[in-house]
Amino acid sequence: MNLANLVRRAVHRFPQGAATICGERRRDWSTVEGRIAQLAGALKNLGLAPGDRIALLALNSDRYLESLFASMWADGVVVPMNIRWSVAENLYSIEDSTPEVLLVDDIFLPHARAICEQTDQIKHVIYLGESETPADLLGTNTLRDYETQLAAGERLPGGDRGGDDLAGIFYTGGTTGFPKGVMLSHANLLHSALYGLPEFDLDNEGVYLHAAPMFHLADGSQGVGVTLAGATHAFIPAFDPEATLRAIDTYRVTNILLVPTMLQMLFDHPRFADYDISSLELILYGASPMPQALLERIMQAIPEVQLAQGYGQTELAPICTVLLPEDHQLDGPLAHRRSSVGRPTVGIEVKIVDDEIRRLPTGETGEIAVRGKNTMMGYWNKPEQTAATLVDGWLLTGDAGYFDEDGYLYLVDRVKDMIITGGENVFSVEVENALTSHPGVQMAAVIGIPSEEWGESVHGIVIADPDNTPTEDDLIAHCKERIAGYKCPKGITFRSEEFPLSGAGKVLKTELRKPFWEGEEKYIN
Amino acid sequence: MNLANLVRRAVHRFPQGAATICGERRRDWSTVEGRIAQLAGALKNLGLAPGDRIALLALNSDRYLESLFASMWADGVVVPMNIRWSVAENLYSIEDSTPEVLLVDDIFLPHARAICEQTDQIKHVIYLGESETPADLLGTNTLRDYETQLAAGERLPGGDRGGDDLAGIFYTGGTTGFPKGVMLSHANLLHSALYGLPEFDLDNEGVYLHAAPMFHLADGSQGVGVTLAGATHAFIPAFDPEATLRAIDTYRVTNILLVPTMLQMLFDHPRFADYDISSLELILYGASPMPQALLERIMQAIPEVQLAQGYGQTELAPICTVLLPEDHQLDGPLAHRRSSVGRPTVGIEVKIVDDEIRRLPTGETGEIAVRGKNTMMGYWNKPEQTAATLVDGWLLTGDAGYFDEDGYLYLVDRVKDMIITGGENVFSVEVENALTSHPGVQMAAVIGIPSEEWGESVHGIVIADPDNTPTEDDLIAHCKERIAGYKCPKGITFRSEEFPLSGAGKVLKTELRKPFWEGEEKYIN
Repeated sequence: MNLANLVRRAVHRFPQGAATICGERRRDWSTVEGRIAQLAGALKNLGLAPGDRIALLALNSDRYLESLFASMWADGVVVPMNIRWSVAENLYSIEDSTPEVLLVDDIFLPHARAICEQTDQIKHVIYLGESETPADLLGTNTLRDYETQLAAGERLPGGDRGGDDLAGIFYTGGTTGFPKGVMLSHANLLHSALYGLPEFDLDNEGVYLHAAPMFHLADGSQGVGVTLAGATHAFIPAFDPEATLRAIDTYRVTNILLVPTMLQMLFDHPRFADYDISSLELILYGASPMPQALLERIMQAIPEVQLAQGYGQTELAPICTVLLPEDHQLDGPLAHRRSSVGRPTVGIEVKIVDDEIRRLPTGETGEIAVRGKNTMMGYWNKPEQTAATLVDGWLLTGDAGYFDEDGYLYLVDRVKDMIITGGENVFSVEVENALTSHPGVQMAAVIGIPSEEWGESVHGIVIADPDNTPTEDDLIAHCKERIAGYKCPKGITFRSEEFPLSGAGKVLKTELRKPFWEGEEKYIN
Repeated sequence: MNLANLVRRAVHRFPQGAATICGERRRDWSTVEGRIAQLAGALKNLGLAPGDRIALLALNSDRYLESLFASMWADGVVVPMNIRWSVAENLYSIEDSTPEVLLVDDIFLPHARAICEQTDQIKHVIYLGESETPADLLGTNTLRDYETQLAAGERLPGGDRGGDDLAGIFYTGGTTGFPKGVMLSHANLLHSALYGLPEFDLDNEGVYLHAAPMFHLADGSQGVGVTLAGATHAFIPAFDPEATLRAIDTYRVTNILLVPTMLQMLFDHPRFADYDISSLELILYGASPMPQALLERIMQAIPEVQLAQGYGQTELAPICTVLLPEDHQLDGPLAHRRSSVGRPTVGIEVKIVDDEIRRLPTGETGEIAVRGKNTMMGYWNKPEQTAATLVDGWLLTGDAGYFDEDGYLYLVDRVKDMIITGGENVFSVEVENALTSHPGVQMAAVIGIPSEEWGESVHGIVIADPDNTPTEDDLIAHCKERIAGYKCPKGITFRSEEFPLSGAGKVLKTELRKPFWEGEEKYIN
C-alpha cells in the first residue's frame, strides 16, 4: 500500500483527532488529508510522473509533513535534503537524484539560490516558508507559493505506487565519507513503524513533538509512526533547548525523540525548571551513543518519564533494536542493560557475523547484520556499495557489537571506526566511556592517529569542565584503572569548542581526525 | 525471528501478566515460557531435527498453545490437524506431511489409534488429555505422558529457524476439494498479527477466549496476536454456546473470535441472559459470510460491545481485510458498509483482477489478489497448485469481490462457487441475502444444479422458521422484488436439519450439491 494511505486511514479511524500543531496552526486529520491530496494534485500539475523525485530543503513544519506525504500520494519519490550540509554537498545530492521540483523554506532560500546558480536540474521551486513569498528565486525562475499551489491543485485520488516501490531517497554518509542515497520503499518505512508500534505506548491521545530535524529518519520516520498511531504531530522549526521546553509545555507534548547532545543541552538549560513538562510520557533517544552519566542524570531528574532508546540507521528505515523503559534501571542486577541498545524489534532478525559473514556465537563481537522487511532497497546509483552492504538478504550495518545471553545487543563501535593499534582492535566507545566517567570530563571522542610504533595509536579529544580541568596524566591514569592498557589513550588533546556534529548529532570523527592525518590517505573518505 | 521469541518477549514485557487460564490452571508468562522451553527439549529428545513436522490433534487447551510454540522453539514445523475431519482425511494429511511425533488428547485417542493402525509414519505419540494417561496406544506403541515428558525435557535455548523458514503446515480445502497443506513461515504468521495489531485495541489487560477451534487459523492465529499483545489466553475445549457464556462470565473475557454460526447459537441460547458478559469489549467474527439479519440482531442486543469482522483465508495467515467497529452502523449514510468486509489491513495490498490477472477498476467485480509479508510460502508438495495461486508475488484468493470508492471490499463469492446460468454469472451470496431477508427464513444456501435449459440453474436450500414456513412461490416472489430475475432461484428445497459445516464453520456446498449432481463430474472435487 501507498504510505499516504495512512493519512486516509487516520481520517477514518480518528475523525475527531488533532493531526498537526505548528505555531498558531492547528488542523484535524480530515483537513490535513484534503491538503495533502491537493498538494499531490499541484505536483502532478508541474508534470511529475510516477517515480520522479521531489527535493525538500526546510526546517520542521506541518508543511514539511504534508510535503512528505503529498510526494508519495502523487506517486513521486521524496528526497529530504540535509539541512546541515553545505551547498556543495546538497548540489551533489541534487545532481545524483535529479529532482525537477524543490520545496524550500525561507531559511534555505539563499541555499536554494546557490544550488540553482550551479545547476539547471531544478525546474520548479515551491516556497513553503512562513513569510511572504518573494517574487522570484533568481530573476528568471518563478518562485511558487505553497498555499497558492495547494489551493489550485485538484485533489488526486491517491497513489498507485506502494509496497516495494521506491518511496524516498535519504542521503547519509556524514560520518564515513561520500554521501550515499539510501533507497527506502513504502513497505520499508511502513514496516519499520509497525515493528516499533508494539514497543511504544503511543496512541491517538498522544502528542509527538518534531524537534529533531525531520530530514533525518530518526525523527522523519515518526512522520509514519505517529500517523499510524493516530497521534498529533507538533512541530518546532529546529531544536533549541528553550523552544523545546516551551513547546512541551504549550502543546502538552507526550512523546519526543531527541539525540543525546540535545538532551544534554535541554538538561543543562538554566530555565529547565521554569517550564511545565509534566505531560511528557516517553523520551525516545538514539542516533548516537548515549553517555551513561547523562542517562543517569536524566533518570534521576525525571523518574516519572519513561525512557527508550532506538538503535538503527537510515538503511534500516531506521530502527533495529529498542531499549525499553523497563530496561532503564539505575541499580539492581539488571542495571547493566541500560548500557546496551536493547533487543531487536519484533519483526527483525539480527545476527553478529565475522569478516566472512558467518554467524558468531553469543558474546562474541563482530559486525551487526539485519534481516527484515525494513532493510533498504539499496543505494541510489551505487550498485557496488549496494552489493557490499546487502548480502544474501542481510544488511551489513558497519557497526560492531555483541549479544548477551538474554538477547541484548551491545554496540562496540563502527567497524570502520575501530582503531587497530599494535595488532589489537580497540573500540573507541569503550575508551570514551572510561574518559567520560571522570568527573572533570564533559565530552570525549577517541580516534586513531598515526603512530610509527603501533600503526595507529589511541588518542583522546576531551572537552573538560572549565572549573575542574584534569591533566593529561590524570585522565590516562583514570582510564588505566578501568580498561586494558593497550586500550588507554597514549595522548589527550583538550578542546574548548564543541565537537563537529553530523546532521544526526553524531560526532564527526572524520573532522577530528583530519589535523592528525594530513598527508595520509586513510581517512580522506 | 523465531515466533516462539514472542513468548520470551511476553515474559520480559509483562512479568506480572497472566498468560493462560484453562479450567483451574492459571499460569503467568514466566511459567509458560519455562514449560514451552522444556517441551521443546522433550521434542528434541525424541529425535526431532530442524524442519521436522509435529502433528497436533486435540481440542483447545493451554497445552495446545504450549505445543504450538514448543514445536517452533524446537525448530520444528507444526501441523495442526482438522478436528472435524474423518480418519481418512487426517490420514492423508499425515502421509502428506510425514510427522513422526503426534500430540493427541483424550477425545481424539480413538482417532489416533485408527490412524496408527493404517500407517507406521507416527513414531511417538504424546498424550496431552486431561484424564490419566493410558498405558499404551496400540499395544506396541508407548503413549507418552505430556507432563512427564515436559518435566524430563531439558530447557532448550531457543529456535534458530525464523523469518522466512517454514513454521507450520495448515491443511485447508474443506469447501473446494482435496486437502492442501498451506505452508506458512514464522514471518507470515508474525506479520499477519502485526498488521492486525493497530486495528484492534487488545492490550496486556485483555483476556481472549479460544472458543473456536485452534487448529483453524481464524482462532489459531490469535495464539500469535494475543501473545504479541501480552494479553491472557483463556480456553474452552470446543465451542458450545453455554460453555462460552459461562467462560466469558467466569474469566472476565474481553475479546473473542466466533464464526457467524456460533454467534447465532450464542444469541439463540435460552440461557443467554443468565450470564454476565459485561466484560466483553470486542467480538471478532469471520471465516464465513455474516448474515445481515444476524449482525443487526447482535448490534441491537449488545450495543456496548464492539464488533469487527476479519476476512481472509489460511493462505493469508489468515487476515486480509478488517471491518472496524466504527464501520458497524445500524443506520445513516454509511450503514451499507457493514455488508462489506472492510478495508485491507495496514501492511497489505489488495487488488481486483480479471481472468488474465490484470487490475480491474474500482467497482468492477473480479478475483481478489493479495500481496504482503503474510502471503503463504506455497502448498506443501503441490508445486502446480502453488504456481497457480502465487503469481508474480500476488496471491490469488479464489474469492470474487469489488472495491467501492472509499476502499471498502465487498465479497461476492468464491470464484469457483459462482453459478453460470444461461451465460450469466450469479454469485450465490447475493441470492442468499435475498432469501434470508424473508422473515420466515432462518438460513439459506444457494447452489447451481444441472439444467438442460440453462447449463446450471440457481437453486435455494432453506431452513425455514417452523412456526412461519413460507412456500416455494413466496420465496421466489420475495427474491424477484430484490434481485434480477435471472439471479432468482428456479426452485427451493426445504431442509429441517442443520447445514453441513466445514471446520471453519462454512456451509459445505460440496455436500449440498452432491444429491443434485450424482453421476456428473463437475463438483466431485
